[in-house]
Amino acid sequence: MPDSPKQSLRTAVAGVSGYAGGELARLLLRHPQLTSTPPIFLGRLSEPDVHPTPLTQLHPELSGLPFADELQVSAFDWKQLERESIDLLFLATPHEQSRAWVPDAIGHGMRVIDLSGAWRLHSDSLRAVYKLEDRDPAGAATLQAEAVYGSPELHGPAIKKATLVANPGCYSTSIILALAPLVRANLIDLGHGIICDAKSGVSGAGKALIPNNLFMHAADNLSAYAVFGHRHTGELLEQLNLAEDQIQFTPHLLPIPRGILSTIYVRLNKKCDRAEIQSIFDQFYFDAPFVRVRRSPQLPQIQYVVRTNFCDLGFQLSSDGLRLVLISCLDNLLKGAASQAVQNMNLMAGWHEAEGLL
Amino acid sequence: MPDSPKQSLRTAVAGVSGYAGGELARLLLRHPQLTSTPPIFLGRLSEPDVHPTPLTQLHPELSGLPFADELQVSAFDWKQLERESIDLLFLATPHEQSRAWVPDAIGHGMRVIDLSGAWRLHSDSLRAVYKLEDRDPAGAATLQAEAVYGSPELHGPAIKKATLVANPGCYSTSIILALAPLVRANLIDLGHGIICDAKSGVSGAGKALIPNNLFMHAADNLSAYAVFGHRHTGELLEQLNLAEDQIQFTPHLLPIPRGILSTIYVRLNKKCDRAEIQSIFDQFYFDAPFVRVRRSPQLPQIQYVVRTNFCDLGFQLSSDGLRLVLISCLDNLLKGAASQAVQNMNLMAGWHEAEGLL
Amino acid sequence: MPDSPKQSLRTAVAGVSGYAGGELARLLLRHPQLTSTPPIFLGRLSEPDVHPTPLTQLHPELSGLPFADELQVSAFDWKQLERESIDLLFLATPHEQSRAWVPDAIGHGMRVIDLSGAWRLHSDSLRAVYKLEDRDPAGAATLQAEAVYGSPELHGPAIKKATLVANPGCYSTSIILALAPLVRANLIDLGHGIICDAKSGVSGAGKALIPNNLFMHAADNLSAYAVFGHRHTGELLEQLNLAEDQIQFTPHLLPIPRGILSTIYVRLNKKCDRAEIQSIFDQFYFDAPFVRVRRSPQLPQIQYVVRTNFCDLGFQLSSDGLRLVLISCLDNLLKGAASQAVQNMNLMAGWHEAEGLL
Amino acid sequence: MPDSPKQSLRTAVAGVSGYAGGELARLLLRHPQLTSTPPIFLGRLSEPDVHPTPLTQLHPELSGLPFADELQVSAFDWKQLERESIDLLFLATPHEQSRAWVPDAIGHGMRVIDLSGAWRLHSDSLRAVYKLEDRDPAGAATLQAEAVYGSPELHGPAIKKATLVANPGCYSTSIILALAPLVRANLIDLGHGIICDAKSGVSGAGKALIPNNLFMHAADNLSAYAVFGHRHTGELLEQLNLAEDQIQFTPHLLPIPRGILSTIYVRLNKKCDRAEIQSIFDQFYFDAPFVRVRRSPQLPQIQYVVRTNFCDLGFQLSSDGLRLVLISCLDNLLKGAASQAVQNMNLMAGWHEAEGLL
Repeated sequence: MPDSPKQSLRTAVAGVSGYAGGELARLLLRHPQLTSTPPIFLGRLSEPDVHPTPLTQLHPELSGLPFADELQVSAFDWKQLERESIDLLFLATPHEQSRAWVPDAIGHGMRVIDLSGAWRLHSDSLRAVYKLEDRDPAGAATLQAEAVYGSPELHGPAIKKATLVANPGCYSTSIILALAPLVRANLIDLGHGIICDAKSGVSGAGKALIPNNLFMHAADNLSAYAVFGHRHTGELLEQLNLAEDQIQFTPHLLPIPRGILSTIYVRLNKKCDRAEIQSIFDQFYFDAPFVRVRRSPQLPQIQYVVRTNFCDLGFQLSSDGLRLVLISCLDNLLKGAASQAVQNMNLMAGWHEAEGLL
Repeated sequence: MPDSPKQSLRTAVAGVSGYAGGELARLLLRHPQLTSTPPIFLGRLSEPDVHPTPLTQLHPELSGLPFADELQVSAFDWKQLERESIDLLFLATPHEQSRAWVPDAIGHGMRVIDLSGAWRLHSDSLRAVYKLEDRDPAGAATLQAEAVYGSPELHGPAIKKATLVANPGCYSTSIILALAPLVRANLIDLGHGIICDAKSGVSGAGKALIPNNLFMHAADNLSAYAVFGHRHTGELLEQLNLAEDQIQFTPHLLPIPRGILSTIYVRLNKKCDRAEIQSIFDQFYFDAPFVRVRRSPQLPQIQYVVRTNFCDLGFQLSSDGLRLVLISCLDNLLKGAASQAVQNMNLMAGWHEAEGLL
Repeated sequence: MPDSPKQSLRTAVAGVSGYAGGELARLLLRHPQLTSTPPIFLGRLSEPDVHPTPLTQLHPELSGLPFADELQVSAFDWKQLERESIDLLFLATPHEQSRAWVPDAIGHGMRVIDLSGAWRLHSDSLRAVYKLEDRDPAGAATLQAEAVYGSPELHGPAIKKATLVANPGCYSTSIILALAPLVRANLIDLGHGIICDAKSGVSGAGKALIPNNLFMHAADNLSAYAVFGHRHTGELLEQLNLAEDQIQFTPHLLPIPRGILSTIYVRLNKKCDRAEIQSIFDQFYFDAPFVRVRRSPQLPQIQYVVRTNFCDLGFQLSSDGLRLVLISCLDNLLKGAASQAVQNMNLMAGWHEAEGLL
Repeated sequence: MPDSPKQSLRTAVAGVSGYAGGELARLLLRHPQLTSTPPIFLGRLSEPDVHPTPLTQLHPELSGLPFADELQVSAFDWKQLERESIDLLFLATPHEQSRAWVPDAIGHGMRVIDLSGAWRLHSDSLRAVYKLEDRDPAGAATLQAEAVYGSPELHGPAIKKATLVANPGCYSTSIILALAPLVRANLIDLGHGIICDAKSGVSGAGKALIPNNLFMHAADNLSAYAVFGHRHTGELLEQLNLAEDQIQFTPHLLPIPRGILSTIYVRLNKKCDRAEIQSIFDQFYFDAPFVRVRRSPQLPQIQYVVRTNFCDLGFQLSSDGLRLVLISCLDNLLKGAASQAVQNMNLMAGWHEAEGLL
């Protein structure tokens, strides 16, 4: 059933007030398969009193899009979702809420795409960074086992049939897509260790009123943070099947609104030439509409991926053919969040993967 | 007495945690007349519990300056100020605190430079925008009458003798310095009305954790605010001796950390040529070390004043000789706050006006 | 004929290498009415030797869009345009080239949308700022008389039938859309004079390798330029039917890639209240899909229009009901150039005005 | 002799029109030991026809500084330098000019601080990246042998006596200062290889009118460049005594005007704890006034070093005590160029190292 096209998919987004939520609203309102009925937009658990709020008050940029000026954002309410016969629920909520709500949503018969980190990790110990286990809802362990990591390039067939898709982290997407072809080809000297030096625009940190999100902190600045301790590390370990000391990931805060560039340093376990590496990437992403493999020595830049669902990959090889620098770029709010979620929806609904995303 | 040089001036800064406070600390620590004893740095009323705090924890950029790494920021305390025999107190505090504390400070024998708006306006009705009157301290009215508006270019002699200097607003400084020469020369057609379209970097709004101060709000953006209602308007009226309908002031939030550019539109009451206007400005600021009058048609730019105490002025005249566009630039945290305060201190202490400011 | 829908419109873009050309390419490649055959992309007269060039080499961000990776940009060549039976030619070329080429294009049976300033002005004296007259091609005067100023909100019916559409300037669009409703309503005290203080992102200046386009010039800066002398002034005079001394326009260079905000100061010729003004704008733009009239005192911001075809309008009225501040925002490369051109194409082809633009 | 203070040092700067030249001018005009006679400012070889030019026309921000408004920038002329009895010549010129001029300058009895890469490298093969050898002036080899690499923290005593100081590269300074203490302590597993992922503001690329320096290229963007091939690599090898495959350096272009942050990945050759590492850095830079060692886990940020001569260092150690991430920040135009040159001048003249730099 999930494989057959369905025109009348009814969708809802919880947590629409954030940056990723706003992008998701924009994409769904313009989606060619969703022109008959607009999505339901809901707030977060922490915002019950401010609803209903006009969608265009939260996101003035959406005004003028189909339906947008009439839509209200309501407080989260299971009854409304049932009444509206929602088929697919997007959660752009904090991970605590996502962890608590997903079992209920699935109990109500919905399929879910969760944009938080709540359901991305299968290992209990890795998931401990999210501090979810204390109040884990009934059935969480079973659901976790069935959750599919929402990377269409790696898990497309499973996503099509999934009930729960855990939409990947933004940093993780950029790094995993760069490394997966080489890991699968067994070309990396894992004993040597992989270095991932990643840089992200400010929207990656969300809308929270904290000093690090102030213009006066981020502008004209660059800073490293969460060295040896960023939560996205677990996704790298599980998706690339690595041990903890085989990969090292350092995020930095860039003075731009959006975009991630990851510079990844790899030692190869055999001497390669440029054509071999190029061919491995070209073949791996041959039919992936949203991964653009650049011709070495041309390298990706953030400006070419911002406001798109593309992940751009490029590389440069040392003259000894043993050391590789990979560059991976994407828009953290789109391929790193909202548009990757729509790509997953397209797969789940049986539509073309790129529907509404070009 | 205030006119005679005094090497051993003892200074204190209350409210050092903000952006202007940090700049003030930097200027005082490097001031050539203050090398023997460092200033006392104090917090705000709202921060009593977090003190003492190392100065370089609040402002890591100050580390390595003389004294800086040893200094602690204490909670505000009159006894400490007395014990240290403070001569001059800088207040970089919210206007409510400045209004409440100044009478006490002066009662304790100190001279005061207040960077807030609390004492800038002599008219009760204009000052109403600060909502201070309800709990006005005893003696406030008398003190207000004696307070000197701290524009060294307009009130230098009075500042030298002042007990209380009300340091001007950042927007006000940029606009008043541009208009004062023409107002004094009676060249403006006041009936026509003056338009001041001003643009400021984000630091002008302070360190508050509010949505407008977020990087994601200010970056890649421009917005007008407080149209027909900005508090600095009162300073324009009093200092330029204008009626409310003779000047209109619209501030905008620029996506840069610091700097103000004001574009000012004036109708002249008689036909002028470029040389006349140039000469009026040149003469008015002949001996002002921190106002740079550019040769028309060369115009000021924010980049040339940032991180300096200069206010740059320039103008362009219409071909009919009747319409004038003035451009005025300064650094809102320096000439618009901290370094203008130091310029005032120099005058009050009988030092050279530019001491420690080039 | 132009009014009847035509699925198979064949389009070409000359001057695709610039910023507006790149945006135009993106919009045409994704346009739902142009899915069968891609546009022909051509270079500028000054770039004959570097062609053919892959489109995605000039604009790497376009890779992955339909056709994009196969398309070559050729040197300009009338024979190719004839061979491909081009119906509609977009010129994103310097105004000298546009002036020279349009008569030929029309002679070859094409309709033309010209994005330069070459054909916008009907008055010879105003057009003198473009220095075109010396080598004006045969028939230019006749063509000029028939050229339609491509503002869909003001000249929609004429655009539908036009052979030559002169796409408006970016500053002009933002100012004209803000003022037209009030001018038509005869509410402005024109004798007093209108002040337009406009601010634009750097892309407005094009890709030229000149000092003003350097990052180190524009970043962390703001500067006014072309005071009393910007070429877009002529469009304001003609479209709003104003005399030269009735409007004054000062552009500024903002440290952002794209977006214009114009702050416009108007004296009314009779006392109005907010509801009256709001109603004038609401009615004027009732059926305009790309003008969003904000509720006063809510004001437009650049961030809400960037990457869209919207022009956002807002206003604030003084308490005496006589002075009005208008704020107008748009994306200079889109509503100020490429997407307004597509909006014009939609009208010329008889399609829905918003086709491919939401 | 060089060790004894000399009040009347006569200085000249060739190549004052660039960004580093402008900063150098600012520092020298304000230098407390140079108040009696201002420096001579000269242009580049490529700019003979545009001189003399007022200094403040090239650098409007310098207006108002002592002497600045009277100074002219002349074409380069040995006779003028002799006539003015110049003791110390700063070269902020392209490396070809520096290579050609230094022997002459020294022949004329001057000491030289060269800010280019022309004299930094002792190895002929490493220096080959500058393509200087073809037209190497007479005596270049001897001079090269005597040239001192101008890192005051590493070569202070030699700089004091040097005739020719080769001022270090900006990237090199940030990386060498971070690694030198660990290299000297023999703590790095060099066989594993060091990764230096460095990010620099746009001013590092100079004032050239090239596409990469455009605002529209750099803003809202990040890009890697010169992967496996940046010219500063040679300085790392020589100063840290490393073989080519022991260090890997990837520069990136940050969307900010100035500042460098280098993230450096090191494998230790024995298990360490945080205190050991901290102590190595603290001791190494105990009396270095311009290296600020942060307490781990506090890390440097670009905003705290911009507009200063400080290099800030910080680190974080993995829990296994074997992997180290170093962060190093400085201002590329100051500690990475102009102010490090002044620090070198202070040493050469026998003044306090920090004179005029705080």
